[in-house]
This record gives sequence, structure tokens and C-alpha cells, in this order.
Amino acid sequence: MHDTRLRRPSLLDRVCTAEHAASLIKDGMTVGMSGFTRAGEAKAVPLAMAERAIRDPFKITLMTGASLGNDIDRRLTEAGVLSRRLPFQVDPVLRRAINDGEVLFIDQHLSETVEMLRSRQLGPIDYAIVEAVAIREDGSIVPTTSVGNSATFAILAEKVIVEINLSQPLALEGLHDIYIPNRRPHRDAVPITACESRPGLPYIPIEPTKIAAIVFTEQSDSPSANEPPDEVTETIASHLIEFLWQEVKLGRLGMNLAPLQAGIGTIANAVMHGLIDSPFRDLRMYSEVLQDSTIALFDAGKLAFASGSSITLGPEMTRRFNANLESYKHRMVLRPQEISNHPEVIRRLGIIGINTALECDIYGNVNSTHVDGTHIMNGIGGSGDFARNAYMAIFVARSTAKGGDISTVVPMVTHVDHNEHDVDIIVTEHGLADLRGLAPRERAMLIIDHCAHPDYRDALRDYAVRAARERGGQTPHLLEEAFSWHLQRRRTGSMRGVNSPSLPGDRNG
Amino acid sequence: MHDTRLRRPSLLDRVCTAEHAASLIKDGMTVGMSGFTRAGEAKAVPLAMAERAIRDPFKITLMTGASLGNDIDRRLTEAGVLSRRLPFQVDPVLRRAINDGEVLFIDQHLSETVEMLRSRQLGPIDYAIVEAVAIREDGSIVPTTSVGNSATFAILAEKVIVEINLSQPLALEGLHDIYIPNRRPHRDAVPITACESRPGLPYIPIEPTKIAAIVFTEQSDSPSANEPPDEVTETIASHLIEFLWQEVKLGRLGMNLAPLQAGIGTIANAVMHGLIDSPFRDLRMYSEVLQDSTIALFDAGKLAFASGSSITLGPEMTRRFNANLESYKHRMVLRPQEISNHPEVIRRLGIIGINTALECDIYGNVNSTHVDGTHIMNGIGGSGDFARNAYMAIFVARSTAKGGDISTVVPMVTHVDHNEHDVDIIVTEHGLADLRGLAPRERAMLIIDHCAHPDYRDALRDYAVRAARERGGQTPHLLEEAFSWHLQRRRTGSMRGVNSPSLPGDRNG
Repeated sequence: MHDTRLRRPSLLDRVCTAEHAASLIKDGMTVGMSGFTRAGEAKAVPLAMAERAIRDPFKITLMTGASLGNDIDRRLTEAGVLSRRLPFQVDPVLRRAINDGEVLFIDQHLSETVEMLRSRQLGPIDYAIVEAVAIREDGSIVPTTSVGNSATFAILAEKVIVEINLSQPLALEGLHDIYIPNRRPHRDAVPITACESRPGLPYIPIEPTKIAAIVFTEQSDSPSANEPPDEVTETIASHLIEFLWQEVKLGRLGMNLAPLQAGIGTIANAVMHGLIDSPFRDLRMYSEVLQDSTIALFDAGKLAFASGSSITLGPEMTRRFNANLESYKHRMVLRPQEISNHPEVIRRLGIIGINTALECDIYGNVNSTHVDGTHIMNGIGGSGDFARNAYMAIFVARSTAKGGDISTVVPMVTHVDHNEHDVDIIVTEHGLADLRGLAPRERAMLIIDHCAHPDYRDALRDYAVRAARERGGQTPHLLEEAFSWHLQRRRTGSMRGVNSPSLPGDRNG
Repeated sequence: MHDTRLRRPSLLDRVCTAEHAASLIKDGMTVGMSGFTRAGEAKAVPLAMAERAIRDPFKITLMTGASLGNDIDRRLTEAGVLSRRLPFQVDPVLRRAINDGEVLFIDQHLSETVEMLRSRQLGPIDYAIVEAVAIREDGSIVPTTSVGNSATFAILAEKVIVEINLSQPLALEGLHDIYIPNRRPHRDAVPITACESRPGLPYIPIEPTKIAAIVFTEQSDSPSANEPPDEVTETIASHLIEFLWQEVKLGRLGMNLAPLQAGIGTIANAVMHGLIDSPFRDLRMYSEVLQDSTIALFDAGKLAFASGSSITLGPEMTRRFNANLESYKHRMVLRPQEISNHPEVIRRLGIIGINTALECDIYGNVNSTHVDGTHIMNGIGGSGDFARNAYMAIFVARSTAKGGDISTVVPMVTHVDHNEHDVDIIVTEHGLADLRGLAPRERAMLIIDHCAHPDYRDALRDYAVRAARERGGQTPHLLEEAFSWHLQRRRTGSMRGVNSPSLPGDRNG
């Protein structure tokens, strides 16, 4: 069996245990690991690193594609391995360590990490640790369920450790398209003019001499953590579909819309699910992560092609995908995240980007990352790559959180990931605000009337009206109470009945 | 003389007065006008519109490239012509009307306006009013000192009014390169792989039947309003040059650096001036506006080529430029602002972007536009197009304003135009903070120690330390006092000795 997975006999002597491979990683090193949205991460070696660190402490800078599965970030955090982590994570234990200042976290646009490595503004990388379905005759690496930053990590690293995962189907071979831009200033256009374009190689080309260790593993990817669509997310999807249908009727979009991107997570996945029952057809995705909704859209005959950087499915869809891999494979491609998220390609293809907001303010600024402006949830991920360069940047959110105690629409967001210049459309279960071509004062009324929960509309309107009257400006605000909603929530547990310092008792319409 | 300027005889009957041309513009119309950084704007017709509106009120939506000279925005505002204005302006009277809510202003990334017009997310445009040095035999238009959005305005508008400006040298012909991307989804790569690339035409191709009126004018562009370099701006330049020199020594940049962009204004212009005495050579610019410093760098033998969307010079440099136009012309090109600011090209070329911050916070978020978060100054302009996609995004600022009463470095900016993900380097006269690869808590210490004015460092450090201790998080903040510096300044006129609610009297180190 191994000769189908490790096809270069001269590399047989690099096969070793995860423990041995982990022992190559020394204190102070910078390590680049595969893994994007819990898919295709190296599994055995990082866990062996965590075990080693408990006996023999050491710290590293860890770069990945995006989030890891199999509790790897948790185990590495608990073992004290991480001094610095970039560019994305979703693990609760690591999150706490970051927010406590114990792990330094650099939250980056997902397209930019390898660009900075290539220009030596970050790095250098000592070891790349990359999951593979196989090593080819020439020593090149076939990735598994994600590409992420694996290719550039492997190309730039001094040494490479490969985990050949026998649980990942060999039929994944051929799914990938590895195109790596040249170093500037000798760079050509990225030759992608359609979701289907395949300018690259179906494997990661590296010199076989760089492969320092090969570990065989069998651990599966963690399944997707998305919750199934519910009434609220279905309503959000229906508002968005109705809006897109209007755009078609206005002649701005065809029945195949434009290439779609959907961020990771329950809401964006539910919105994509909603397209199954839409009138649109011959859809295409140019996205980061292909989720359950991607497979469901294929099976419904709605989706013609899907380009991403990873595949992250729930248990049921994983079975369906693996059972019909050959049939899906010809309609899919996985690319390096630098390419799936490349500003050049996103602008050229004219993508409809759908991402999730943590909160938004009445003027259309979006916070995707920081609770109360201080505590990070996950990271900006690819949302900025897409929103800034999209044909249309859509942000979706539930109108409230914590049983209604938190309004998603606030007077001023406490952290800005996507500013007013980059947000075209906001959708909640209460409706949709089309902000294109509007000045901030106009946006405020739309967002409040269409997106905010009715319980909070009067208070938001009151803020907007008083800010315009008392302070004025292009973007009226009352700085002394801009964060009063967040502060009250911290004090009392709820933003309801938020009280204004200037008009006590007069805010709860 | 006119037959060198108006080369299509069948258009002679369109020649008319500015008053007649202005009479074509009706109430409620959307008008796209030439003009970018006070260069190459239509002059006679808009002023005639303003005069007409005093007698016969009407309102329009006005789109331009960027800012206009010759007080046109002021005159149109005073005459009540503007209901809606985009995507940029710098006029004090218009600014007041915007901040008073009388004119609706849509502050856009300069690369995006025509992209939205082309996809019919904005518009349609009824009339384009475009300044030209000449109309060619086939009816095509040769722009003057700016391209801005003129080409796409003229191509998409129902009708076009051309102002042939006899004061603009005919020798400008050949300076322009008009490349217009196709409508999506049928778009190819923008074929620009170097500052010198010329994939387009040296004129704006339109059907001559669209030309509704031709007006001859003689009014010059307004001169640049930049102030000459002073001790502070020279110190900022010297910090930046020292830093770039370090980058060269580290092997990250060559002696020709990378293509340079510099925003409009005194500080960015002064920084570029500083390069005259630097060790760098064979420099190139891929920028929006070519300023006095561009000509000075050419004359000093430092600059090999300059690409921009406009030329805005002071009186002395205008004379020098016009006297040697043929010699400069072969080393320059003016492009549509969509192309000068195109994310695709900026990322591909690997630009060093230098833009001005109004204020920045201790975590590296930059406010470029809004005083106190409410009152707009000018607009984001192209700074976002460049900063997001640059090889290196640099923001320059004086460390204080208003005689030291305002600190440019604050605990939290009141408006975010460039967030922590997009800001690599901050420079003031006190030093430079290199934020690449750093977590927010690390950035805070660097920005405070290197960039803040010494009078404000203790108070900033105190805020950062207390925020980390009392609240923690990836980005520690005390929401209850995040804007206390701005609020005190509004109350007392100064941020000095800012007082914390939690530690009264303990802030002014």
C-alpha cells in the first residue's frame, strides 16, 4: 500500500515515528503547518510536539493556513508550545491564551501571510509540516483536503516534514491546482479568468532532499462544526435571495449571478443552502472553504463549479463526498489560499462575497473579530480579502445575540474590520439594507429600519437623531455615549433599555 | 489654431458658450466631471452651471475623479447645485455643507467608482463634462493634466460636453494611457506588469455623436496647495529613508526600492522630496498624483519613470514642467484612476505606499478622514486602494497638531479608514514603528515609544498598561475612556494632561 502513497523509493529512509519527527522541531523555530478551516492539517507531529513539550518545554512561532482541527491548537496551547501564532485560529483554549496575552496572535488577511514570507517581511520558516495523500515519484507532495499555505510553506522552508494520511482518499489527487506567483518585481498576472482556470500543477513541487521526515497517519479531519440551518438563518437567506432576484430583474446580474464566496460558519453556510430553492442556476463558487452547502448545491443541480482552498464537511456530507469523489472532483478545484483569496482574481471575477458580522454599526462599519473591542473570537480570515475587492460585499448576522440581550446593530462598533467603504449590503433576519451609493446618514436609517431588531430600533434612531442634531458631521456620533451600549451590557448583562447620559430615562422607545 | 484642437470638422457646430452647455444640465441629473487633485477639471461649464443655478435653482449628483480646483466645488455648493457628491473633495465650503448634512457625500475608494458605474450599481450618468487638450479626427478626446474617471464617465454617459482648454499645452498629447477593463464576467488580466506598461490608447475613444457641446476655455489649473518641506517633514523623511536603507541592507529591497506611491499633501510630498538626498537610485513611481517632488526627483536624476493619474504642481514647477514637457513626457504616463489605483496592479508591482494619517491609535488603526469621528476632512481617496494591497503600507503624520494640543497618537481612533491589518509602518518626526508581524500589544509599545510626542507618551503608556491589566484581550481597551482624549480636547481645547476617570490626577507623566 505504501508504494502508492510514497512513490519515491529513495525517501523510504525518511519514514519515522511522529515522535522522531517532532524531535526535529527546536525551541525558537518558526514552523509552517498545513490546515485550513479544520481540513488537511498535519495531525500526528504537532500532537507529538505537544507531548514532548510537556516533558521538555519549548516554544515556536506557528503559522498555518487557517484553523486546525483535532484540538491541535488546544493541545499545543496547553503544552505551552505557542509563543506566536498566525494568521487565524478558532480554538477556545488558544483564544483564551491569546486574550490573556500569553500567546501573541497576528490576525492577518489570509491572502497576505505568504506574500510577506516571500518578501522576507516575515519568517524565515525553519520547518514546514504538511499533510499529504501521497509523495510523488519526483518528491512532490499531493495535499489532502486543504491547500491553505502549505505549498509556499514547503517551498520556502528549510526542511519539510510530510504526514501521509492514509485516511484521506488517494482519489483527492488531481483536485488541487498549485499556482504560486513569482517574487516581485518579476511578477506576471495571475492567469485565472474563470472559476475553472487551472494554471498550476496538481501537486506541490519541492526538492526531495528537503524532506526531513515522513510520518504515516490515519486520523481523519475533524467534521465541520456548522449547525444546520434554522428559522433565523433561513429568513436571512430568503431576504438575500429576494434581493439578488431583484438585481437579476434590474438586469445587473444574470440567472447565474456572479461567482459566490461564503465565509466559514453556520450563517454563511445556511445562506448558501438557501440557494437550493432559489430560481438561480448554473452557479459558480470562488471561495475559501467548500462546506456542506457546496455539496448540497451540486446534488441539487444548482452549482456548475466550485473553487476553494479547503473542503470542510459534516459527517454525513463527508460520506457522500468520499463515495462520489470522482464525480465531484471534475467540478472542483482547491487552490493555495493566496490564490483563492487573491485581490487580483476577486476583483477580476466580480465576486459576490458573503461573510458574517459579529456586530455592525448604524453607518455600516463591521466588526468581525473583537467582542467589546478587546477580546478576539477567531480572526478576520479571508473576509477582508473578499469584501474589499468584491463586486458586492454582503455581511450577514443575526440581529441579536445572547437571547436578545445583545443587539448586533450598535451605535458604533468597538473594532473595525470592514469599514464603511467596503460594506455594500447588510442582512439580518429582519431584512436587508442596500448601502450602495449612500451617504452615512442615509445608511443609518436603512440599517436601523431594515436590520436592527425591533426592540432596539427606537434607541438606535434616538442616538442617530441626537448625534446629527447635537454634533452633526458626515458621520454623526456622540463620542461620550458611542460605547454606552457595550458598557451597559457589561454592567447589567443586557443592552436593553440602554440609558443615555444626556437624556436619562428617555432612550427605551 | 482651433483646427489643431478640434480636428473633426463635423463637430464644429457643437461649439458653443459655457452658458449654453450648462443649460443642457437639468435638475436631477447625474453628472460625471473630469478633475483629479485640482488638475484637469472642467472649468467653464461648471462655473456657468453655478451662475445659472443662482437664477434658476437645480440640483445634481456630481461625480468626479477626485478634488477640483478653481473653487468649483465651492461655487457649486454656494449656488446649491450639489445634492450628492462623490467620491472625494477638499473644498472647505463643500466640506462644511457635507458636515452640516446639506450635501450627501459618498466617500469611496478612488478605484471603485467607475467599477460600480460599469456594473450599474451606481448611475447612470446623464452627462460627462471633460476637459481636453484636443478632440481628434475620429472624435476621441485627449485629456489634459489628469485622467481620473474621465474616460469611463465619457464612455458610459449618454452625452458628453468637452471643454477644450487652450491653456493646457498640446504637447500633453501622448502622455496618457487609457486602458479600460471589460465588464465582468468577461474580464482579462490588466496587462500592466511594470510602471512603464502602456496597454491602452493615448486618448479616450467615444462615438463623436455623443458629443453634445464643445466649449473653448483658457483658465489654468489651480496650483498645488502643498506647503514646502519644513523641519518636521524633513525629519519624517529622514526616519523613513533610514528605515528603507535598513531594508536594503537586509536584502529585502534593492537600491531602486519598489515602485513608490505618495498620497497628495504636504507631508507625503516632503517625504518624496527627501529621496533626492537618499542613496537610492533608478526609482519608479506608480502613484495617483505626480507632485512637485516628482519633477524634482526627475531633475535630480533619481527617478526613472512615473505613472500617475494626474499632475498637480506649484507655480514654479508648472513652468519648469511646461518648458521641458517633451523631455519629461517619455518618462511619465497618466492613467485612469481605476488603473493607477487598481488592487491587481498594486499587488502585482509590490508598491511602497506612503499616505498621511489624521490620527492613529496605539494598535495601528488609522483615521484618514474624520475629525473627532464625525466631521470629514477630505475623504479616503486612494489611500485604501494602496494600503490594502501594497508591498508595504506606510503612514506618515506629525506627532501633534494645533500647537501640540492634539496628539496624533491616541488610545483609540474615532474613525477607522485603515485597520490594524493594513498598516505596516507608522512614521512621525519622533521616529518610526515597524509593525510587521507584531501582535497588537507589541505594536502599542512601539508606536508609543517611537511615534508619539514625548509629552503624551506616559499617558498613552498608562492607558495601554491599565487596559491590558483591567480588561485584557487581544486588543486591550477601556471603552469608558477610549475617547476621553478627544472629549477633553473638545471641552478644554487640549489633550494635554488628559484625566482618567479611574485614576484621577495620575495620568500626566
